[in-house]
Parts: sequence; C-alpha cells; structure tokens
Amino acid sequence: MNEQYERLKTLLAEVRDIERALAVLWWDRQTHMPPGGGEERSNQIATISKIHNAKFTSNEIGKLLNELSSQTADMDPDSDEARIIKVTKHDYEMECKLPERLVEETSRASSDGLEAWHKAKAAKSFSMFAPFLKRNAELTREVAAAYGYKDRPYDAFLNIVEPGITTAQLETIFSELREAIVPMVRDIAAKQEVVDDSCLRQQFYEREQLDVSLSIAEKFGYDLNRGRLDKTAHPFATSFGLGDVRITTRVYPNFLNACLFATLHESGHAMYEQGISPTLSRTPLGQGASGGMHESQSRLWENLVGRSRPFQDYMFPRLQKTFPEQFGNVDIETFYRAINKVYPSLIRVEADEVTYNLHIMLRFELENEMLEDRIDITKMDQIWHERMERYLGIVPEDDSVGVLQDIHWSGAGFYAFPSYTLGNIIGAQLFRQAHKEMTNLDEQISKGEFADLFNWLNTNLYQHGRKFTPNELTQRITGEPVGTSAWIEYARGKFTELYELKSD
Amino acid sequence: MNEQYERLKTLLAEVRDIERALAVLWWDRQTHMPPGGGEERSNQIATISKIHNAKFTSNEIGKLLNELSSQTADMDPDSDEARIIKVTKHDYEMECKLPERLVEETSRASSDGLEAWHKAKAAKSFSMFAPFLKRNAELTREVAAAYGYKDRPYDAFLNIVEPGITTAQLETIFSELREAIVPMVRDIAAKQEVVDDSCLRQQFYEREQLDVSLSIAEKFGYDLNRGRLDKTAHPFATSFGLGDVRITTRVYPNFLNACLFATLHESGHAMYEQGISPTLSRTPLGQGASGGMHESQSRLWENLVGRSRPFQDYMFPRLQKTFPEQFGNVDIETFYRAINKVYPSLIRVEADEVTYNLHIMLRFELENEMLEDRIDITKMDQIWHERMERYLGIVPEDDSVGVLQDIHWSGAGFYAFPSYTLGNIIGAQLFRQAHKEMTNLDEQISKGEFADLFNWLNTNLYQHGRKFTPNELTQRITGEPVGTSAWIEYARGKFTELYELKSD
Repeated sequence: MNEQYERLKTLLAEVRDIERALAVLWWDRQTHMPPGGGEERSNQIATISKIHNAKFTSNEIGKLLNELSSQTADMDPDSDEARIIKVTKHDYEMECKLPERLVEETSRASSDGLEAWHKAKAAKSFSMFAPFLKRNAELTREVAAAYGYKDRPYDAFLNIVEPGITTAQLETIFSELREAIVPMVRDIAAKQEVVDDSCLRQQFYEREQLDVSLSIAEKFGYDLNRGRLDKTAHPFATSFGLGDVRITTRVYPNFLNACLFATLHESGHAMYEQGISPTLSRTPLGQGASGGMHESQSRLWENLVGRSRPFQDYMFPRLQKTFPEQFGNVDIETFYRAINKVYPSLIRVEADEVTYNLHIMLRFELENEMLEDRIDITKMDQIWHERMERYLGIVPEDDSVGVLQDIHWSGAGFYAFPSYTLGNIIGAQLFRQAHKEMTNLDEQISKGEFADLFNWLNTNLYQHGRKFTPNELTQRITGEPVGTSAWIEYARGKFTELYELKSD
Repeated sequence: MNEQYERLKTLLAEVRDIERALAVLWWDRQTHMPPGGGEERSNQIATISKIHNAKFTSNEIGKLLNELSSQTADMDPDSDEARIIKVTKHDYEMECKLPERLVEETSRASSDGLEAWHKAKAAKSFSMFAPFLKRNAELTREVAAAYGYKDRPYDAFLNIVEPGITTAQLETIFSELREAIVPMVRDIAAKQEVVDDSCLRQQFYEREQLDVSLSIAEKFGYDLNRGRLDKTAHPFATSFGLGDVRITTRVYPNFLNACLFATLHESGHAMYEQGISPTLSRTPLGQGASGGMHESQSRLWENLVGRSRPFQDYMFPRLQKTFPEQFGNVDIETFYRAINKVYPSLIRVEADEVTYNLHIMLRFELENEMLEDRIDITKMDQIWHERMERYLGIVPEDDSVGVLQDIHWSGAGFYAFPSYTLGNIIGAQLFRQAHKEMTNLDEQISKGEFADLFNWLNTNLYQHGRKFTPNELTQRITGEPVGTSAWIEYARGKFTELYELKSD
C-alpha cells in the first residue's frame, strides 16, 4: 500500500505542476500579455490542457486509485491519505467521463470565447458574442450529458464544484432569499435619502488606491512574500502553489469602492489558498473546498469584516490620511453608510450586499434555461433587459453593462455563479460562529487586530483545503449544514438599523 | 508524404507550445514572481521540461523524421519543408544521444555547482569552487563524447549552438581579433584623457530611463503590440511566439548606459524573433538561427546603430529633452565619445566594444583547455590572472571579479561564450553590406529613419528563422562566410578617429 500511495502522490504532484503552469499562462494573459499574444497563448493552453488531461486520466492513476480505495476501510476516514484517495477518485471518474474531443473543443471554445467577449464588450454589442455563447451553451450541455446527472443538467456541474449541493436545494435557497430580500429592497428604496455615497465618488489617484487597498489586505493576513497585486479588467485570485498566490484588482479613478473592496475580496480568496496545509501541497486537495467555500472567505473579508461598522474605526482614519482632501471633512458614520448604500444597480460585481443575490438568481435561472434549452440565446440581450426590470426595476443602457458584463460565459461550462450566493450565506454562518467563540471579535476588528479571526479561519477552514465538502465543513464548524438563516439574520439586522427601517 | 509531414508538424507544434509555456514560467520567475514561489516554480519547470523531452524524443517523431528525410531528395533544399525536416532531424538525433544517466548527472552537478559558485563568489575564493568546476569539466567531456565529434570536443557543442562553425575556425577568428585588438587597446589606454564619460554618471529617474529607452526601441521597429518591457536583474529577451516577444532591462539610478543600451540590445533580439516568417511559427525553425546570429542583431542595434555618430543626431536631442538638467549643457560630441569610452576592465558584461572580444577569447581558450584536459583546473585562478594581464594589462583584485565572475561554469556544458564574439563580427559583416546596398544609410539613421534597415534585415535575415546556418546566412547576404574583416575595419575606423590615434 505505502509504495502504491507514494507512486500515486508522485504522479498527482506532476499533474498538479501542470495545472499550476496553466494558471501562470492564464494569469499572464489577463495581466501582462501584449495584444498580439492571444492566438499563440490559446495554442499553448490547449496543448498543456490536453497533456494535463492525459496525465491525470492515465491508466496507471486509475489502477492505483482503484487498488488504494479498496484498502481505505482500515484508515481514519478524515486522514489526508484517505481523503486524497477518495476525492481524487471522484475527480478521476468525472474527468474520464469527458471524451478527449470534448475537452479540446471546450478549451479552444473558451479561449476563442474570451477574445470575442473582450471585443464584444468593448463594442457594447451582444450580437458579436452571441454565436460564441450559443457554442458554449451547446458544449456545456454536451459536457453535462457526459458527466451524467439524475435530475437536472445543472446537477452534473454542482456535483463537481459544490459537492453535496443540488439544483433543487439551490432553488430553495434562492426562494428563501428572494422572500427576505425583495421586501427589504422595496423598503430601502423608499428611504434612499438616508444614505449619501457622494464621498466615494471623487477623484482618487490610482497609485494611492492600490497602495492603501493592498496595505489593508496585508494587515488582514495576506502574505506578500507569497503573493502580489496586479491590475486586470476583471479582478481574480489565482494560486501557483502555497508560496505564490496572486490577486488582481481594478481601479476606477472616480470611485473608490471598485479597487478597495475588490482587493479585500480577492485577498480573502488568497488567504484561504495561502493557509492550506503544506501536507496537501502538490495534491488535488491543495486548494479551497469549493467555489462557495472560497467565496465565503472573499465575502467574509470584503463584507462581513470590510463593510462592518467596527472595521471602519480602523480603516477610515487610514483612508483619511491617504486621501485628506477627499475625506478630511467626512465623518465616519457617513462613510460607513456610503460603503453600505443599497440600490438596484446594473453591475453584479458592484452590487451591494442586499441586491447581490438577485443578480446571481438571474444568472442561475438563465443558465438553467440555456442548459435545458428553454431560451433563445440570440435574444439573451432583450431577455436580460426584461428580467432586470422585473427583479431590480432597472434596465441597462447597453450590453456591456448588461448581458456582457461578466467574463464567465466567455467559456464553456456554466456553474460558477451559485457559488457567490453560497459564499454569502456560508460566510455569514462562519462569521456568526466566530462571534460565538470570540466574544470580543468586534472590538478586535475595530482596533485592526485580525490575528484571532485569521487563525480561527486557518485552523477551522483554510488548512483543510479540499478534504471536506461544504456541508461537512459548515457542520464541523457551526454544527449545521449550509443554510440561509445566518445571512438573513445578518442582513436584516444590519440594514434595518442602517436604513432606519421598522423591524418586524 | 503530405500526411506524414502534416502529422510531424502537428506533433512539433505541440512540442513548441510546451517550450513556449516553459519560457513564460521562466520569464515570470525573473520578472514578477514573489520570493515564496521559487520552490514550486522549480517543480513546475522540472515537470514540464520532462514532458517536453519525452514528447520531442518520442518514437513517432523519430520514425516520421526518418521516413520523411528519405523523401527530401526531390524537394527544393531551401524550402520550409526540406529545412524543417533536416534541422529537426539533427535536433532529434542530438537530443537522443544523451543517456538518461548523463542528463541526470549533469543536472545534479549543475545544481550543486550553482550553489558552490554562489558561495565561492561571495567568499571570493576560487579554491572553494575548483572541485565543482573539475566535475563540470569531466561531465562536459562525457557529454561531448556522447554527442560525438570528428576533431575537437568543443565541436560537439558548436555543432548544436553554432552549426557549421568549428573550433578551428573560431581559433582563427580569435587570433585575427587578438592581433587587431591588443595594440589598439594599448594605444587607447595611453589616451584616456580624450574621453570623459561623467555626463552619463548623473542621477536619472527610473521611469524616464525606461520610457525613453523603450521609445527608441519602438522607433527602431520593435512592435509593442507584440512585446513589452519589464525590469530584471539580468536583461534578456524571450519569445512566447511571433505575437509575444518580450524584453527586460535593468536600471541604474546613477548611470544611464545600463538601461538605455540594454534595452536597445534586447530590442535587437526581439525584432529578430518578431520578424520570423509565420510559416515557421510553431516549428523548431521559428527562432533565430543561432546564438551568434541572434547576438549579431542585438549588437547591431545596440552598437553599430546605437553607438554610431549619425544616430546621436537623432537620439541625443531626445535624451536632452527627457533629461534637460543632465544634458542641457552637454554637446553631442562629448556625449558620443562618452558612450564609446574604451578602457580595459575586469568584468565582461561591462566591457566596451573593443575589449569585449578579449574577454570571450580568454574564456574560449580556457574552456578548450579544460575540455582537452590541458590545464590544471585547481590553478585556474592564477592562470586567469596571468592571461588578463597579458591580454588587457590588468589583474583582478580577487576571484569574484576574476575567474568566478560568470555564472556559466557553475553548470556542466561549455558552449555559450563564442556566440558573443560571433555576434560582434557577423553584425559588422551585415552592417557593412547594408551600407553597400543603402548608400544613404547613415543619413537615414541620423534622421531617425530605420525602416529601410529594418526591412532589409527582415527580408535578408529575420524571416528565415533557423532555416540556414550562420555561414549560409552570411554567404547569402554578404557573399562571404563568417569572418573578422568587417569588424576589424569598423573598430579600427571608429576608434582611431574617436581616440585620435595614428592610423596605419
């Protein structure tokens, strides 16, 4: 057994190296690649992806996984070894289900789609992108069929990205959230005068925005000896291994929120990756547990900490020092309200905490409709406009702030959006538990002391990497599976007070 | 045949993609990687390199090359197809000649040697490094024997890095250069007062150094839609494909030459790579013909253009505009002399145009003596001192600026240095020919018009990639094989005038 396990680990380490190399190729493409490099980069990514697939789905790995998993009965089921075998076997079976042709086609379609999406968005023209989206939807259906599912095609992807969560469960979650959010948004809309966010809409120099945002992320616990910040159109975090976890952000010269909160958001992702146990490095478990668990950390640091009242006692004086002209005459309560302004907006990534989940719900609906062939994709721009009006009461002025706003559909495979809402609700569950275990947490946060929270998250969550599922993790940490109650309690409490609403 | 050839091209394209991905991993390591990323990056590079080797030396490629090369008799020997088959077959045979044991041993010895070299250099003590150099020399002899050679062991390496050039030809080249240079250096040493380069040794802001240097490289013809400039400790150029050829430079805050001329130097390498015919893209021929041919282009743009008198009419006013305080009161003749100051120096990478080749000659001699076991390696420090005194009239104060200055001998495999001198003399051959064909070239250069020269180089050299050998290329372009006469004529003319020496 030991020899077989060591052999498996060696092979998986090489597979991991290839994944990391691919991540470098992607990161460079988004951050530094000159315009002319796109076509050849697509070739490189396609070739390396093919090699990755072939290496991971090799007969030797399959055989080792089969033999080893028949021997795990005597092992501690929560040990690294048992979990590596179990999780990797599931990955392996899923990966083997995709024929090589489909892997290549989706990889190439995603590369081509990305280029087309950039161009279409710049031209504000959905019709330029429609054929690529149609192709991506077709390929995504094919992929779902290849993976297999019992009930709904979306389940095929959830089984991979959010193991244990089903489409039906998500529909319940969204329904609970909708019931809570829609009246709240209506009440808040009637009290818009309570919050004025004009202090955030002044001129802020790029260098200073980047520096102050990164310094706060570093204070949270993001280790810059093992990370760095770059600018991109669409912020993201990426890991090339425990020692090199990078984030990107965007900068708007006339609106502070974009850079500041994107940086805090991505630093949450990055701290999760940096905190994974070295024993899981170069294994398939050396990454966050799922998209939703990952998002719980970006949201926790961005919103539950970053937009909390206690945190402003720490952050706002620093922002005042960096931007004396802009904030010299602004009081902390005005600033706190400004960064928490709730209003129906067009752009998901700029949406406030309350309406955010409605943006996700819209996308989750559309993805299911595309997957189940219940929608005319060439008319997605109009459909988008109609639903935005129905859910949020607003209509985008053009496609770049409408159906083209997100990068996600530039690639084949629809599964990413629900993770954002799962992240919101899981983040609230964990944060509620953290407050139970650290009764002076708010006081620490107001003083800029994040070590206890950071260590608590490292111990309870980060170090485990991908050993446990989202439901297992929330169960271990909070005693409950994934659910909406903590988030609804949090959002009602915060925004009832902030918007001076009548409480129930 | 056609089907086999297409299959070969597909396989080679994938091999190429892997090489390009490796280049991205290296570039990122030198430019942007945080300190913590080193160990995992080494794993990634090792894994991808192993895959590259396995892919290229596959039986399928070997078989295809054998079958196809038996069918090239009817083909135009200068066609892309014939050359791709011929050159790749040679690459393939060479790559297959090294037994795995030897690859592993040299890799290990290079790792150990690098560590020992760093320590020995820091301690300024050659004796600490001597056993490792001895081991590297032994392994290099073994590698030469494995590759095979007719006459001299050095030929085994030249056959790969400078195909068609022999050790004997290089010895003739160096002997001709020595005869020309040694007396010139002596004469110049006696007239040091003629050139004052203090105007270059002032404070220059980094951003302005980078911007003005890059703007000149762009004016030469370096296409920034397909390239970019970053900072590194050691400047280099690297290609990720025709659409993405990047350069790096270094910046010294108190000495303009480092950034300015390194940028022009690397832009020469980059223009060569950017100019390769798209028909050679993703083939083994889609790169410069050899180290020497590559260096001919970096040297041509850096020195033959960049340090020429006509070019200062274009460049110097721009530098004056960028640096009015530093250059406002400097006249163009003073500046021209300053950037061409010649003085015997200890460090190769800082050497001027005249003495540079003597540094290379010294290393080439010693490498041959090590390879042919004609030298006592434990006494290399003394021997280095004696030869430096003989050739340049100076003696290093310690080994760190003597025999330990270059990183190259920390690894097994001696072959890198001659390319620098080949570059100098080939550059001069091509530049002399360009002047014959474009009689007003100096006038164009003085006006900042580089299109004719750029197009001439593209047509005659760049587009061909690695189709022809260095001797074939100089023969095709100038009617002569690689030789020293053009460089000697150039150097004598330029420095006799500049240093007001007596002409013969």
